[in-house]
Amino acid sequence: MMNGLRSVTSDHRDRADEAGRAAPRPETDSRPLITSRFRRIRTLSSQLAARLTPEDQMVQAGPDCSPTKWHLAHTSWFLERFVLERFATGYTAFDDRFTYLFNALTEPADTCHPASQRALLSRPSADEVQLYRDHVNAAILRLIADVPSAQWPAVARRLDLALLHEQKHQELILADIKQAFWMNPLRPAYHGTGPGAVPAAPGQGWFQHGGGLVEIGQDTPAPEAETPRHPVFVAPFRFAGRLVTGGEYLEFMEDRGYTRRELWHPDGWTLAQREGWNAPLYWFKRGGVWHQFTLGGTRLLDVEEPVCHVSWYEADAFARWDGRRLPTEAEWEIVAAERMPTGNLLDHGRYHPAVAAARDTGPWQLFGDTWEWTQSAFAPYPRHQPGDMAIGEYADVAIGGRFALRGGSALTPADMVRATTRHALAPHVRLHMTGIRLVEDV
Amino acid sequence: MMNGLRSVTSDHRDRADEAGRAAPRPETDSRPLITSRFRRIRTLSSQLAARLTPEDQMVQAGPDCSPTKWHLAHTSWFLERFVLERFATGYTAFDDRFTYLFNALTEPADTCHPASQRALLSRPSADEVQLYRDHVNAAILRLIADVPSAQWPAVARRLDLALLHEQKHQELILADIKQAFWMNPLRPAYHGTGPGAVPAAPGQGWFQHGGGLVEIGQDTPAPEAETPRHPVFVAPFRFAGRLVTGGEYLEFMEDRGYTRRELWHPDGWTLAQREGWNAPLYWFKRGGVWHQFTLGGTRLLDVEEPVCHVSWYEADAFARWDGRRLPTEAEWEIVAAERMPTGNLLDHGRYHPAVAAARDTGPWQLFGDTWEWTQSAFAPYPRHQPGDMAIGEYADVAIGGRFALRGGSALTPADMVRATTRHALAPHVRLHMTGIRLVEDV
Amino acid sequence: MMNGLRSVTSDHRDRADEAGRAAPRPETDSRPLITSRFRRIRTLSSQLAARLTPEDQMVQAGPDCSPTKWHLAHTSWFLERFVLERFATGYTAFDDRFTYLFNALTEPADTCHPASQRALLSRPSADEVQLYRDHVNAAILRLIADVPSAQWPAVARRLDLALLHEQKHQELILADIKQAFWMNPLRPAYHGTGPGAVPAAPGQGWFQHGGGLVEIGQDTPAPEAETPRHPVFVAPFRFAGRLVTGGEYLEFMEDRGYTRRELWHPDGWTLAQREGWNAPLYWFKRGGVWHQFTLGGTRLLDVEEPVCHVSWYEADAFARWDGRRLPTEAEWEIVAAERMPTGNLLDHGRYHPAVAAARDTGPWQLFGDTWEWTQSAFAPYPRHQPGDMAIGEYADVAIGGRFALRGGSALTPADMVRATTRHALAPHVRLHMTGIRLVEDV
Amino acid sequence: MMNGLRSVTSDHRDRADEAGRAAPRPETDSRPLITSRFRRIRTLSSQLAARLTPEDQMVQAGPDCSPTKWHLAHTSWFLERFVLERFATGYTAFDDRFTYLFNALTEPADTCHPASQRALLSRPSADEVQLYRDHVNAAILRLIADVPSAQWPAVARRLDLALLHEQKHQELILADIKQAFWMNPLRPAYHGTGPGAVPAAPGQGWFQHGGGLVEIGQDTPAPEAETPRHPVFVAPFRFAGRLVTGGEYLEFMEDRGYTRRELWHPDGWTLAQREGWNAPLYWFKRGGVWHQFTLGGTRLLDVEEPVCHVSWYEADAFARWDGRRLPTEAEWEIVAAERMPTGNLLDHGRYHPAVAAARDTGPWQLFGDTWEWTQSAFAPYPRHQPGDMAIGEYADVAIGGRFALRGGSALTPADMVRATTRHALAPHVRLHMTGIRLVEDV
Repeated sequence: MMNGLRSVTSDHRDRADEAGRAAPRPETDSRPLITSRFRRIRTLSSQLAARLTPEDQMVQAGPDCSPTKWHLAHTSWFLERFVLERFATGYTAFDDRFTYLFNALTEPADTCHPASQRALLSRPSADEVQLYRDHVNAAILRLIADVPSAQWPAVARRLDLALLHEQKHQELILADIKQAFWMNPLRPAYHGTGPGAVPAAPGQGWFQHGGGLVEIGQDTPAPEAETPRHPVFVAPFRFAGRLVTGGEYLEFMEDRGYTRRELWHPDGWTLAQREGWNAPLYWFKRGGVWHQFTLGGTRLLDVEEPVCHVSWYEADAFARWDGRRLPTEAEWEIVAAERMPTGNLLDHGRYHPAVAAARDTGPWQLFGDTWEWTQSAFAPYPRHQPGDMAIGEYADVAIGGRFALRGGSALTPADMVRATTRHALAPHVRLHMTGIRLVEDV
Repeated sequence: MMNGLRSVTSDHRDRADEAGRAAPRPETDSRPLITSRFRRIRTLSSQLAARLTPEDQMVQAGPDCSPTKWHLAHTSWFLERFVLERFATGYTAFDDRFTYLFNALTEPADTCHPASQRALLSRPSADEVQLYRDHVNAAILRLIADVPSAQWPAVARRLDLALLHEQKHQELILADIKQAFWMNPLRPAYHGTGPGAVPAAPGQGWFQHGGGLVEIGQDTPAPEAETPRHPVFVAPFRFAGRLVTGGEYLEFMEDRGYTRRELWHPDGWTLAQREGWNAPLYWFKRGGVWHQFTLGGTRLLDVEEPVCHVSWYEADAFARWDGRRLPTEAEWEIVAAERMPTGNLLDHGRYHPAVAAARDTGPWQLFGDTWEWTQSAFAPYPRHQPGDMAIGEYADVAIGGRFALRGGSALTPADMVRATTRHALAPHVRLHMTGIRLVEDV
Repeated sequence: MMNGLRSVTSDHRDRADEAGRAAPRPETDSRPLITSRFRRIRTLSSQLAARLTPEDQMVQAGPDCSPTKWHLAHTSWFLERFVLERFATGYTAFDDRFTYLFNALTEPADTCHPASQRALLSRPSADEVQLYRDHVNAAILRLIADVPSAQWPAVARRLDLALLHEQKHQELILADIKQAFWMNPLRPAYHGTGPGAVPAAPGQGWFQHGGGLVEIGQDTPAPEAETPRHPVFVAPFRFAGRLVTGGEYLEFMEDRGYTRRELWHPDGWTLAQREGWNAPLYWFKRGGVWHQFTLGGTRLLDVEEPVCHVSWYEADAFARWDGRRLPTEAEWEIVAAERMPTGNLLDHGRYHPAVAAARDTGPWQLFGDTWEWTQSAFAPYPRHQPGDMAIGEYADVAIGGRFALRGGSALTPADMVRATTRHALAPHVRLHMTGIRLVEDV
Repeated sequence: MMNGLRSVTSDHRDRADEAGRAAPRPETDSRPLITSRFRRIRTLSSQLAARLTPEDQMVQAGPDCSPTKWHLAHTSWFLERFVLERFATGYTAFDDRFTYLFNALTEPADTCHPASQRALLSRPSADEVQLYRDHVNAAILRLIADVPSAQWPAVARRLDLALLHEQKHQELILADIKQAFWMNPLRPAYHGTGPGAVPAAPGQGWFQHGGGLVEIGQDTPAPEAETPRHPVFVAPFRFAGRLVTGGEYLEFMEDRGYTRRELWHPDGWTLAQREGWNAPLYWFKRGGVWHQFTLGGTRLLDVEEPVCHVSWYEADAFARWDGRRLPTEAEWEIVAAERMPTGNLLDHGRYHPAVAAARDTGPWQLFGDTWEWTQSAFAPYPRHQPGDMAIGEYADVAIGGRFALRGGSALTPADMVRATTRHALAPHVRLHMTGIRLVEDV
């Protein structure tokens, strides 16, 4: 149980230094630390792809997805364009044509290969793309070693952005290949190990917070969307102890949740009718029994695991059906700031949400398992200053029509996730591991 | 705890009683007052149409517009469906088929005539629609006279909603016929009187506000989107004295404002390129000179008048070009709450924004002239309770992807506009009289 | 060398002089005859519209339809553009802007009002359009009186084309208003008189033709699509005595004709599935009983009348179901050339196909009632010479993807229809009065 | 020079036995001959793919293209479905799921994998598809050896169809990979050998034919579209000695052929404007010089080679510009029937049209180099009997809106091409090697 206004916010600041907001700042990184982080992240991308055939790495499963091979090349292009071209004197591009092929900026049209045509690129081959990665990696490591100290902070800041960018693409590689394998009637599996014995999830509990005038966000330097730290007024609320489970979601479905118009946001109702939604993405019935498709292949639906791959519309409808609501960003952040940012994230190698374990006093599952939809429209924070326009960060922050999500999923690299981390998705998106955290008014 | 909190909000509350939040509540209306208001509003709709031929009243100028005749009939259907059917025992519908024809609810598909096919309805004729209005008017007046006192509050609440609904459609009648006449190469005029002598607008001035923890909105009973009244923290800001003028907007255009990507929201940039936007809607060059189309016909652009018919994207790009920004809803409301809600509204019969007049200490033009885009995404207020689901109010509040606007335009009926009034439009919309109020950070 | 060749073709030529090919040639018309024809045809268009309100005349029921008012104005524009501008010295246009508004040529885009936006033209009003017609009519009559004899043949040829063009639009006026009234849930009627007592159709009979090397078409002067007359080889065939009736078509439906893929042209199958076709256009079930919508309003389906408003795909599927096929153009023409070109055409004022009457030896219903689909793709005849490119005739002949139809319908002006007359529609079109004539191989 | 009616047709019949119509009939094939043909054709498909990487074989370059891997699997599915399932008792499918994956029938939707999603099939891999081919090949060879004599004619007929089907797909494999490599900005080459020394094409010459009542087509057994043999009347005409060259087509372009509306079929004009066509597909300017993309990579345009990759609309516009026209099917066939069906076909391994060589008296290039557009709409011949509905042949013959082509291209297997062979493409298609043969009226 949390207490009132004053103590919460001072408490909050103290804990933030220990946990949620304590991500390393590039300026304070020594070169060896950045070097080590660079090696680790760049290697992980290649390792994620190594489980796939060159043919698998070609597939573009839909307009919102990209081939694995493209992700691998595009993250290298990003380093070339925003780090090497700017800072590495005498750098020779691996292949000048890749500037066009692996650019993802949307303007002007003739400077980048159309996003919808990425599956056409049988050449360069997967092998050539790995050579491209090696070439860029070597040049970056040389740059880190050679760059004058006066320039180092600028380079470090750009590398930090580039590695954050690559980590976002690691999550996309897995989400996209899951969709690719789902769209293939043969339903291949990305990894072979099945899940272990399944425990039961603890019963849902409620943690009360007193609200008040609190502060959220971070000041610069920090990811642009998280700046600046600013005050927000929050009314008292009760926060769910764990994510909504698949079994709870099944109850919603069995209570005709998908056909009761009054539960749905009007836009979501129209969409769900048109698309014929009647369950989360990757759930399907076979022989009258619910199954789900995972990166480990098809298996029986596990009702104890958190429901995931639901759109904001479904999360919102579920919450209304349950007589509750989704949290605001501020509510989520002030609860999360009091907990360590660890959980079932990409580094666990599970690639799937896990059943909640009531190891301490809760609430649980704040970090990892599934991204948690909030009821807050994603928008720049008040008095936000647009950052490095060249690198397209502003677009990340400003594109409209999305909702904020918090906490990371089983596909999110662990060091991307803190209490202040914001993610944004359009309300119809189901490709990502997105789940439901409930809140109720006091 | 913040300094200005107590004083700002108490000051605020006092003024609200005098001005912005002082709209009459249905429960306190005596029957004669409602009767008089009903007669006045219903008559005005017919008068707005009386300047048009029956053929003009048929035109549907685009997917977001409706024919005048349809607006006239639909507002009567609304009274029939939500007041007469519910409360008027023994009421006989004018024509049972109109239930289907003039329903605008979107679900289910077979209970309302498709919105895109309203221009097909040559029958009922304009004359028959007026008979329909007369029939409904008579039944409502009889109901007001006859309904038992115990039921009167419920009837009054519904009538209040229906009249608010009709007033919204009065603004749509004029916005839609403007587009209809613009799309006709003959460019007819809705009214004949030209504008009078044009004064110069006063120079732009800036009014500082200290911010703090303030309250906005209203408690029930009030339009659902304005509820509940709740605290918001606002940092100090400076508020522009008047709306941006056409001349100021021309400077933006001449400074290549439409082709500088860095000024634009990414979504807006894509849209503006695709649509070839290079000026506000209804502006065009003829013989090298800027003209504008108004409800009074085509005339030379008046650079002293406020710019209007700009989308949110254009308003936002202009503000960024000018080194400023759009206000938040809270900023706008706490400034407006200190002023009387009067201005160049529909009742003035001008049908076009007027040049600002610096009659008092300012800021000016808060009410009327043009709706003012804010930077706030339109969403239900915190702890908002969905209202009368039957009547579709919730959809008005919940539909996503829109921005909040404040203050009303030269086409908005005067008694719809208060400091708390919220309007919502998608960021691409230019059909309505929407203009630009600037704010700068302190 | 074939047996029947000489006798069939000589026989054929003789009859053609009496009947099918005996349309008057403009060169031989004296001025009084053309004057009289001009008055008659121009007046009929206005009379067809006179049954409609100005609001009815605004409706554009779909992308392939136009408003009545537009048809009335466009046919006047045609006379202005191709006759008066070319030959009438000193002619003053009624309104210069109409050149843009009522042009239907498709190129270039900025010289004509978009076809999809014709319903936007509340101005000019129906009254103004009639004034426009009067103005053009007066100028044409003056031209006929005043043009020098040397120029008269050229003027007469153009007038002939313009009147043929206006007659085609008379049929379109009625087909389009039928669709407009059908799309209006109130289902208004174009004319008030119901059908008289319904006789039974005679049983289907078969008329054998020996085929051979025959000639079809006409030499210049004639409508361009009918030129030149040329030889075609036709194998022996049997020709149905009357059109397929609604009752026969019902049998096809009851035998699951719309769901048996093997009966359908592959393109038609795809279309019928997508559109959910399960009956001819304008047929619908109410209370379990088949009704049909006609220009006289809704009434019970009359199973003795010819089926109409069927697409080529439906006609073809019906024929295959029946073990027969549609005729070729040559087959139809050599049978029709032996009969007088009279029947239930527009001039009868019935506006609907009639039950076949076995008045003579048959075959019957060749002219009028319904256009008869053939199995021949509509294409220029061999060695065809493109005609007057200015006037857009070539496009009429050359546009691809259509099938030829023969014989005219109950909406076709009588003097348009001869044995050689060719009409062309895309195979999916059902807006026109199109029916089924069967043929079987010997 | 050819002579009149009687002699031409008798002459024709005699020659047909030697040349054009002399394709072996399945009934007369001994088993060893079919076995040999089966081995040869099946091996060629795999050889065509062997020049591509597994990644290349994944690419689907557009909605009208398929991946190489899919072609290889689909042709095996065809044998499985229409030969093995029907005749090979005890046959075990290679993988039951392939029935769904590689089915190309369009109905019903749930029995085949959507055509637009073929690029998603990273699994089965290219290696697995070759195993599938091996499995089917072995089963077919066993069936040929074991099937009882009474059944052999039916098996032979089906095998004949299946091999014809596979040969059509060989041409598609090459046309599709050409488009795939063209769409890749890296522009890979399919084969490495450049063209040899380029001779000059002979001047265009004209060969007169007397026309008359001639016969075309074949009687059963024959490909369904070529049946039955039937009489057609042809007027005298002059036939071009060779295909139109790239240089002649350049003259058309330089004479503004793509911007002169009067040369174009109305549908083609609209399409060419919308798509911005200004040259044949695969032609492009670099540094002011015309280049062309070929299966051997990018090289300078060779003006002596036949123009190819032109749509019917371009071929038709060129002919009109030249004051000539495209041939009818009958004209082409009666000329071709007098020549041996040999030329620059797939078996030459050139994969590109060659410069005409005036080796004998001409006309030349009738077989191979490019398919030749005719002015004849592709439709079943008169009195055509639908064939084996199960196998989808009827759809091949009946799909509307296409024009007939004759003579085969440099990508067409040689034994598919005879004087009677008909091919059909929609008039907008440019993916295939389609060129221009001119004819002029006498």
